Amino acid sequence: MQRSALRELLKLTARPEMISFAGGLPAAELFPVEQVRQAADAVLGRKGGQALQYGETEGLGELRDWIAAKFSRPNLSVSRSNVIVVSGAQQGLDLIGRVLLSEGDGVIVENPTYLAALSAWRPLGVRFLAVRGDADGLRVDELDTLLVQRPKLLYTVPNFQNPQGTTLSAERRGRLVALLREHDVGLIEDNPYGELRYEGAAPPNLLDLDAGIAVQDGSGSNVVYVGTFSKVLAPGLRVGWVIAPSDVVEKLVQAKQAADLHTSSLSQHIVCELLKTGVFERQIPLLCAAYGERRDRMLAALERCFPTGAAWTRPAGGMFLLVTLPGGVDAGALLERALLRQVAFVPGREFHLDGQGRSTLRLNFSNAGPEQIDEGIRRLGELLDETQ
Amino acid sequence: MQRSALRELLKLTARPEMISFAGGLPAAELFPVEQVRQAADAVLGRKGGQALQYGETEGLGELRDWIAAKFSRPNLSVSRSNVIVVSGAQQGLDLIGRVLLSEGDGVIVENPTYLAALSAWRPLGVRFLAVRGDADGLRVDELDTLLVQRPKLLYTVPNFQNPQGTTLSAERRGRLVALLREHDVGLIEDNPYGELRYEGAAPPNLLDLDAGIAVQDGSGSNVVYVGTFSKVLAPGLRVGWVIAPSDVVEKLVQAKQAADLHTSSLSQHIVCELLKTGVFERQIPLLCAAYGERRDRMLAALERCFPTGAAWTRPAGGMFLLVTLPGGVDAGALLERALLRQVAFVPGREFHLDGQGRSTLRLNFSNAGPEQIDEGIRRLGELLDETQ
Repeated sequence: MQRSALRELLKLTARPEMISFAGGLPAAELFPVEQVRQAADAVLGRKGGQALQYGETEGLGELRDWIAAKFSRPNLSVSRSNVIVVSGAQQGLDLIGRVLLSEGDGVIVENPTYLAALSAWRPLGVRFLAVRGDADGLRVDELDTLLVQRPKLLYTVPNFQNPQGTTLSAERRGRLVALLREHDVGLIEDNPYGELRYEGAAPPNLLDLDAGIAVQDGSGSNVVYVGTFSKVLAPGLRVGWVIAPSDVVEKLVQAKQAADLHTSSLSQHIVCELLKTGVFERQIPLLCAAYGERRDRMLAALERCFPTGAAWTRPAGGMFLLVTLPGGVDAGALLERALLRQVAFVPGREFHLDGQGRSTLRLNFSNAGPEQIDEGIRRLGELLDETQ
Repeated sequence: MQRSALRELLKLTARPEMISFAGGLPAAELFPVEQVRQAADAVLGRKGGQALQYGETEGLGELRDWIAAKFSRPNLSVSRSNVIVVSGAQQGLDLIGRVLLSEGDGVIVENPTYLAALSAWRPLGVRFLAVRGDADGLRVDELDTLLVQRPKLLYTVPNFQNPQGTTLSAERRGRLVALLREHDVGLIEDNPYGELRYEGAAPPNLLDLDAGIAVQDGSGSNVVYVGTFSKVLAPGLRVGWVIAPSDVVEKLVQAKQAADLHTSSLSQHIVCELLKTGVFERQIPLLCAAYGERRDRMLAALERCFPTGAAWTRPAGGMFLLVTLPGGVDAGALLERALLRQVAFVPGREFHLDGQGRSTLRLNFSNAGPEQIDEGIRRLGELLDETQ
């Protein structure tokens, strides 16, 4: 499937009669619309000129300070100079590629992984080195053969990975940060879903674990962290951030200046207002309750409706799970027939390197409501029964 | 001056006691703040979910249709498929570079020209070929020696160019589009200031003139046009557009998807609302009256306060003029002393290729009020008198 074909698919799924497990959309009915309206009203009333004027490329100082404070720990001092505000996490990935990667550089990625990270970096002429994952995330024990190829970076989504929904275990996290330092390989930690945890305790960020080593040997950070307000507040605002050593931030700022001058001032001011009025903190439990229920509904429906031999991941959070179908079913062909019954998903092959994942499908459980989830999975199960 | 030094300078100019002719800022006191507040209120009230959700990479259909209609002529049919919404015109330039330029490609640019176009394209490893300008804009008669080098593109800001404020004459426009077609060189028309005209009639867009030839010989367009809502509505919304042949738009969309997924949905919905409620049309005469007065004040103050032998451009619109100082005065050294007297500008060398423009300064006349313009130019004149 071409990127453009996938985009056309996602447009199709916007039809109201379609039950879509395809996109990576949050549930629009849970957006804090009224609070955003009040926030827009407040910032335009109080400082309209500023909220509509050109702004600094690195982002609003107040917002950078909030992010710095949120990530600071006893072992990890994050200051404003370590933070750049970006136009969504996707821009963070794009700028990181421009600043840190050159033609021929190796980048270790999970297989499967977040598609748009590959799209952002592929034009740079980098080599992707694939490492498998399992229920505990990236197989750190299989990195050795890749590390001898002297890659530049490793890219990972450690929490509720897209497309698998799996989370890197605490034990593997410690080994990963140490191993990458040993081999002088930088670590890109992409964490869009971290706040959306429906069970269990959160393992520490790779950024924190790396800082623990840095404190012992007096070195700098080896991690560039990418975050976003898209999942907890609203993606349509397009506000994310990158945390990095200040010399890297300075380079990111120069690249961003050429890319789009700065992120929407109005969006940044609105986000600041939502942080100050506690909307961000209040959204988290609300989203976790709703999405956790949807995850449970989907897992139960899969159990009920999918054929013996089908397997799926059981994410502790996030927005996705990955199903593996038995008997070599082609998920691409299945999709064509599913669309006729008004159900959509993304074939898992889209997220795999080397043409793998033919019999896998990524299912999003954050966008459709509980009843739609039951009905959509029922229809897919019916289709699979007919296929067998 | 490093880019970072220039950015630091522009931060300095944000101090309230500073009279700044440095940045390219519109006047914040003229922003339609109350109308933006009402627009935000209306779109969040009416379709909050949509305005805060992920959107299509190519931009809001309604907004693309408005842009297509605005640029359609009897000879020039612009449809939705010819338009991509971008996160400010700067992103348009960045994406154009990614899609149309490769290492080693030649790009003809005016000397001096808009700095950030160079910043966006320089990392691609392109060769810039400089052509002079005069009071009638780019010297089309001097292009021959550059065209034999088989460049890929020519980039121009035909109206009220940044930094010179000059406008390409109607006669030269016709010759330029024909010449570029003849040599198979693509044309990038960057027109952020076109609506801000304070006197005289507007010559046709290069996009239109090129379409006139295309209609005769049945060929496609040779022009990619970049526009923005930043100057008429507000730059803090970060909404611009690119008009191009649909196959080029499709490539721009793919590049944009990797760059930032899409432009802020909220900003796009607000812009749509401001278009529908006539705010865009009402802002133009209002801004032209105010900025036209400021331009006149600056021209009069220069006449009064600047030494014999100094020369400057007389822009018919836009936001900038360029001063050339007599006697080889170093504008960079002048700036250091000007800052001590709380006046800022950008040394013209920043906009020149090949280290030219040492004795030139770019003055912005849209941001400071009329009294500030009088006082700021008086102080600069005083400084110049002391220097002689």
